[in-house]
Amino acid sequence: MPKYPPVSALFTDFYELTMAAGYFANDLTGAATFSVSVRPSDRKRGYYVAAGLEDVLDILANFAFTPADLEFLRSTGSFSPAFLSFLADLRFTGDVVAMPEGTLFFPGEPFLEITAPIIEAQLLETVVLNTVGFQTMIATKAARCVHAAQGHPLVDFSLRRTQARDAGMKAARSTWLAGFMGTSNVLAGKTLGIPITGTMAHSFVTAFDSEREAFMAYARLFPDATVLLIDTYDLIRGAENAVQVARYLQENGHRLIGVRLDSGDMITGSHQVREVLDRAGFAEVKIYASSGFDEYKIAELLRAGALIDAFGVGTKVGVSADAPFLDIVYKLARYGDRDVKKFSPGKISLAGRKQVFRNLNAAGRPVADIIGTRREAFADAVALLEPVMRAGHVLGPSPTLADIRIRCGQNIAELDVEFKSLQHPADFPIRISDRLSTLQRDQSSSNPE
Amino acid sequence: MPKYPPVSALFTDFYELTMAAGYFANDLTGAATFSVSVRPSDRKRGYYVAAGLEDVLDILANFAFTPADLEFLRSTGSFSPAFLSFLADLRFTGDVVAMPEGTLFFPGEPFLEITAPIIEAQLLETVVLNTVGFQTMIATKAARCVHAAQGHPLVDFSLRRTQARDAGMKAARSTWLAGFMGTSNVLAGKTLGIPITGTMAHSFVTAFDSEREAFMAYARLFPDATVLLIDTYDLIRGAENAVQVARYLQENGHRLIGVRLDSGDMITGSHQVREVLDRAGFAEVKIYASSGFDEYKIAELLRAGALIDAFGVGTKVGVSADAPFLDIVYKLARYGDRDVKKFSPGKISLAGRKQVFRNLNAAGRPVADIIGTRREAFADAVALLEPVMRAGHVLGPSPTLADIRIRCGQNIAELDVEFKSLQHPADFPIRISDRLSTLQRDQSSSNPE
Repeated sequence: MPKYPPVSALFTDFYELTMAAGYFANDLTGAATFSVSVRPSDRKRGYYVAAGLEDVLDILANFAFTPADLEFLRSTGSFSPAFLSFLADLRFTGDVVAMPEGTLFFPGEPFLEITAPIIEAQLLETVVLNTVGFQTMIATKAARCVHAAQGHPLVDFSLRRTQARDAGMKAARSTWLAGFMGTSNVLAGKTLGIPITGTMAHSFVTAFDSEREAFMAYARLFPDATVLLIDTYDLIRGAENAVQVARYLQENGHRLIGVRLDSGDMITGSHQVREVLDRAGFAEVKIYASSGFDEYKIAELLRAGALIDAFGVGTKVGVSADAPFLDIVYKLARYGDRDVKKFSPGKISLAGRKQVFRNLNAAGRPVADIIGTRREAFADAVALLEPVMRAGHVLGPSPTLADIRIRCGQNIAELDVEFKSLQHPADFPIRISDRLSTLQRDQSSSNPE
Repeated sequence: MPKYPPVSALFTDFYELTMAAGYFANDLTGAATFSVSVRPSDRKRGYYVAAGLEDVLDILANFAFTPADLEFLRSTGSFSPAFLSFLADLRFTGDVVAMPEGTLFFPGEPFLEITAPIIEAQLLETVVLNTVGFQTMIATKAARCVHAAQGHPLVDFSLRRTQARDAGMKAARSTWLAGFMGTSNVLAGKTLGIPITGTMAHSFVTAFDSEREAFMAYARLFPDATVLLIDTYDLIRGAENAVQVARYLQENGHRLIGVRLDSGDMITGSHQVREVLDRAGFAEVKIYASSGFDEYKIAELLRAGALIDAFGVGTKVGVSADAPFLDIVYKLARYGDRDVKKFSPGKISLAGRKQVFRNLNAAGRPVADIIGTRREAFADAVALLEPVMRAGHVLGPSPTLADIRIRCGQNIAELDVEFKSLQHPADFPIRISDRLSTLQRDQSSSNPE
């Protein structure tokens, strides 16, 4: 399985194709710039973590219609032979600027801009949004969990309940780059090199005649990698059975890694289990927990003094349950030599090719962002959008996932805590540069007549 | 692109493999039955629509580890050569009973049961849950929208914001089988034969020098398939421009299909637009609307008298935004000759191989369900779980998507309206048969000691 499975050029909304046919028939062949951003009205998150760029670049670099694709389009009766011939030769020839994966950004800021002949850029809208939207959403959710966990390791357990398979693969990647310690997803281990982890489910315990027998069978087979699931029947008796396994392993020169709680009151339960383990001399055996965790529940349990060493984080993070879609848009900002925007109520977009500048203080911490035009420069500010593709060619290798993970960790560490609050993050200061503001007024000539 | 892309056997949680190694090392080779159901505690929906079975059967029939998979597993250092050799020859040899796709079911009811040597059944847990969980969730959400729309056509527009690509394909299939009229997803049109639809976005309108020019360009190209997006600048002027296009089309022997509203107050807006169109003699031009629709908003708009003929339904349905995961489980119900269950707080499962019987009244409407053992029979009740796979072989061809769609429509039509309420559905009566109840008590011998 390749790192990124091939994506059909037909993975798009039909209107992208009918619009493309409209541009083609009317000789609209100029360059268009589309800006990708999260709408400012999306107030569920204080910050976002850019993710999915490597995947997008792979899609753009391999964009092409196959003969079977063209035959299907012909069969719809909607397209002229001339347009279908044009599609047969179409490749992506544009330029892309983007924030590197792992960069923190804020609502309203473009984190990706594509400039290409309008037909190419239009046809790719759907797949670009689909690709960066989900990964950015999950990396953001995962970064919030990492923040809430205050150094306790987190592992991605979401695979069984992600929204289908591609999401399961991308959830493993996105949670890892945001700072998780591993995933249960074996295929993500193989294709992406993410550490894989996991021990047993309730079915394993119930398949044996007794819990103790199941525990011993597992420990004999994996004497250096056993975490026992102790809540199938009764938590305290499960912990007592775990102590017996810990003794057995100790006598044979190994040690029990941990026990896992997957139900019930985690505060009381973790204290009770800790006591059983400690009393038996197994203070080093870790307590793992899993059960509908997300950043809110992790924060709450740690605040309440739950004795949990590491968290298995599943469904609620893998689908970003409290905010399961990103209000992400792909807006035409410039066509030919004209900057454009739309005026629909609540959906106004910023015209023009843009750059995002991050002001850093003396300590290197971000204090404000400026959304400006592409060619401005500001003292003490770094430009976040970097060229990543030119004339359809990817510029240099993508950073490794490990490097992306480091960038994300640094970005989060540098952000002041007030902006990282889970419930009520402060608004990060963002201003529009004078030059970009002027440009918004100047392009009001676009009109319905 | 095949209908169902191949799925790696490594698309699984790591613990499925370590447990399998545990079964293998301890000669646990007996048959296990796993039940798939939605936990009864999931109260967000009155009913569910079974979906995803065809995909699951394809996965089971093609289940195999490749040499590269085995090499990756070997590289983890967790598995013995004997176990890896065993995996190399492993295929799915089990039996499956399931409710046909499009069947309505209720929380707590098994809608799929797999009986197979425990290693096979265990390894497939993750992918089975991932596959039927999402599709059942979306088919259910879509069926609620269809109910709310009271006969107004619905179209799936979710592709750009589904949770990655596989979800986008499955959302098109699941919404279609639940009664949608089409999708914007072109690839779903090609691979699944679903009608595709769509016309223009705001970018098309802003790419031209004026809205009217954009509208005319489109109408000239697609004189029999034009729906004009009229809210880019100003809704009323957009409607007036649409009237001019409608006149042009009329003069040339065609007609404007419709206009689309994508923002603002849909009640006022639709009335204003209707008036502009009607006054100009275009009462037959339809009003399409799209903008964060789900079953709640559709019901509210229709109740408030919005003059909307058809709805484009996107993100909120494609991710099931109000309930973005199904609390779906895969529980060991029987191993060898022993019925089993677990007792974790709030997570008790039903032991034994099961069947779901639906009691119908004289008019053929369902009045109650009975969860019983596999071999019971009840007067005036139909057994919903059907054999679909035996000894690893699929029994007969899957029903066509069109047939599944008809079944779903009939199932929904036959369900009394009290169970279909969007906000407060009545609990559909479900009882456990005497024989299944007895079996729950008899297997209490499973215990921690």
